[in-house]
Amino acid sequence: MRLLTKLRDAIGGRDTAAAAQAQRRLDALTKPPGSLGRLEEIAVRLAAISGRPPRVAAPVIFTLAGDHGVVAEGVSAYPQSVTAQMVENFLRGGAAVNVLARQAGARVVVADFGVATPLGMPEGLVVRRIGAGTANMAQGPAMTRAQAVAAIEAGAALAVEAIAGGADLLGTGEMGIGNTTAASAITAALTGAPADAVTGYGTGLDESGRARKVAVVRRALEVNALDPADGLDVLAKVGGFEIAGLVGVILAGAAHRIPVALDGFIAGAAALVADALAPAARDALFASHRSAEPGHALALRHLGLEPYLALDMRLGEGTGAALFVMLARAAAAIHAEMATFKSAGVDGPA
Amino acid sequence: MRLLTKLRDAIGGRDTAAAAQAQRRLDALTKPPGSLGRLEEIAVRLAAISGRPPRVAAPVIFTLAGDHGVVAEGVSAYPQSVTAQMVENFLRGGAAVNVLARQAGARVVVADFGVATPLGMPEGLVVRRIGAGTANMAQGPAMTRAQAVAAIEAGAALAVEAIAGGADLLGTGEMGIGNTTAASAITAALTGAPADAVTGYGTGLDESGRARKVAVVRRALEVNALDPADGLDVLAKVGGFEIAGLVGVILAGAAHRIPVALDGFIAGAAALVADALAPAARDALFASHRSAEPGHALALRHLGLEPYLALDMRLGEGTGAALFVMLARAAAAIHAEMATFKSAGVDGPA
Repeated sequence: MRLLTKLRDAIGGRDTAAAAQAQRRLDALTKPPGSLGRLEEIAVRLAAISGRPPRVAAPVIFTLAGDHGVVAEGVSAYPQSVTAQMVENFLRGGAAVNVLARQAGARVVVADFGVATPLGMPEGLVVRRIGAGTANMAQGPAMTRAQAVAAIEAGAALAVEAIAGGADLLGTGEMGIGNTTAASAITAALTGAPADAVTGYGTGLDESGRARKVAVVRRALEVNALDPADGLDVLAKVGGFEIAGLVGVILAGAAHRIPVALDGFIAGAAALVADALAPAARDALFASHRSAEPGHALALRHLGLEPYLALDMRLGEGTGAALFVMLARAAAAIHAEMATFKSAGVDGPA
Repeated sequence: MRLLTKLRDAIGGRDTAAAAQAQRRLDALTKPPGSLGRLEEIAVRLAAISGRPPRVAAPVIFTLAGDHGVVAEGVSAYPQSVTAQMVENFLRGGAAVNVLARQAGARVVVADFGVATPLGMPEGLVVRRIGAGTANMAQGPAMTRAQAVAAIEAGAALAVEAIAGGADLLGTGEMGIGNTTAASAITAALTGAPADAVTGYGTGLDESGRARKVAVVRRALEVNALDPADGLDVLAKVGGFEIAGLVGVILAGAAHRIPVALDGFIAGAAALVADALAPAARDALFASHRSAEPGHALALRHLGLEPYLALDMRLGEGTGAALFVMLARAAAAIHAEMATFKSAGVDGPA
């Protein structure tokens, strides 16, 4: 609990001076003021978060994996074995997040936060296991409060280590069969939206599958008697180890003034928890895209975040965060590399 | 006129076999089918256009410059001298399109299609001048029909040359003080929307400036007695040299089965003309983003195109096209580099 308390205390606000300086520079560049729209907004926000000129030189994406006891309720189109198999795929570089991170020049950290199927110790895997998958949230709490704190702190420690190594943009990613069900329950609890509005087709349910999933989310919300004012209570009872790890990544980024690029729906649920624990954390967040999962739009609205990509993705892993890295790099390059009206000898408005 | 006729005759449809093959491969990759959303759509469309597996190895952005006689009506916040000054900025690599094209690994071709201010022969400039700026469309035709055809063919020839050199994705970009006024008039003529609905603030007009611009667009539409069924008539009377050049780039891309990434509002107007000349050309087009200029959304709707980026940009130059290159590269890499369920030993749906 010490690290968590320390992080929460360290989360400050925006650096308005750095933001204003970035804005002045952008306005001096050879383009009509504001004409690069939200690309300029990214540059200014990078400065506001970090307190220095926008820079994206060493982005790191955290792809945290964990299993979910709630799969016993038949909420996923895929068997639980896929979580472990995909972790191995990440480590071999064959998954979507690997391909997109390579394109974006981002490093991927793959960590086991509690995969049910034994993984051994494959090369490159970071092991931060809290348990062999969570308990079934439809029958009781998914985790103990102590487990949730341990997972948050483990995620935060990974982020702190990356930041110490020079990481200047953190991306959130995850893998866990069943975790859209957990994200749906978290989103319902923390936005106040009904289960039906936040629950989607996940990796490929049919109509009756989705109806079952809605019922499971509703049951999880009922049996666990959540306290929506207590983010940790919600996270522990209906979250997951990897989601808790992402809460830690987000809080560590915010505390250390390092921007955090959210991926999709699961990351949005983690951000809702981080926001409940430390509301100023949202200042450090970028919403990369809006997932096809219906709960994501509600989470983003709650967080006051507007996505940059209109791609209807719903894969997770950190794929949306990887694409956002490209935009953030582009925004920082605009700020750093463009000529000014003065340096280029271009006339201003008549 | 011979090249234009040849290009129009060569524009075919989609290669459905190549598209189906790309789709099958995407469905075999280690992700739920369709879960990368519109990134998968990009990959499939790249295949459908080119007739081969999606590939983006040598993208080229055409930043064509031209001046507009209509600036005499006070429709721009910037003086006409800026067109030439920005061309010099492009050639020095200091403009936004240069920065973003470097990020995306795209080459920028900078061509003078009719800048009013003498440019000399700066290193790297491609000279395809049709005249020293168009005539004032508020008083009569901006160009002759012969000039419009010459500009289209010059643009097409540039694209054909790039394609012969290996270009596998073309981006459209432009520079021309006053050209949002021309694009507004083209968009009104070819979509049927009123002048007020297609005319925006351009590079930074105030309310009264925009009102004046709307009146100028309305006058240009009236005095020129356009034939909306004749794309060439519309282009000649209310277009511009650089816009006509982009029509040529688009038609050449479509005829040679090379995908074309549209930039913003001006590119959208060029695409409307290309579509009027050869409706099948739209199959070759990607809308990178939706400009903050109101006419752009109308143009995209008319063309049946949905943008991928939600960035509220309004700069032009090819900046949106450069950002789209990143997404197209990402889509092609997903198709080429991801592991399949079989190769990775990952279980499918239960």
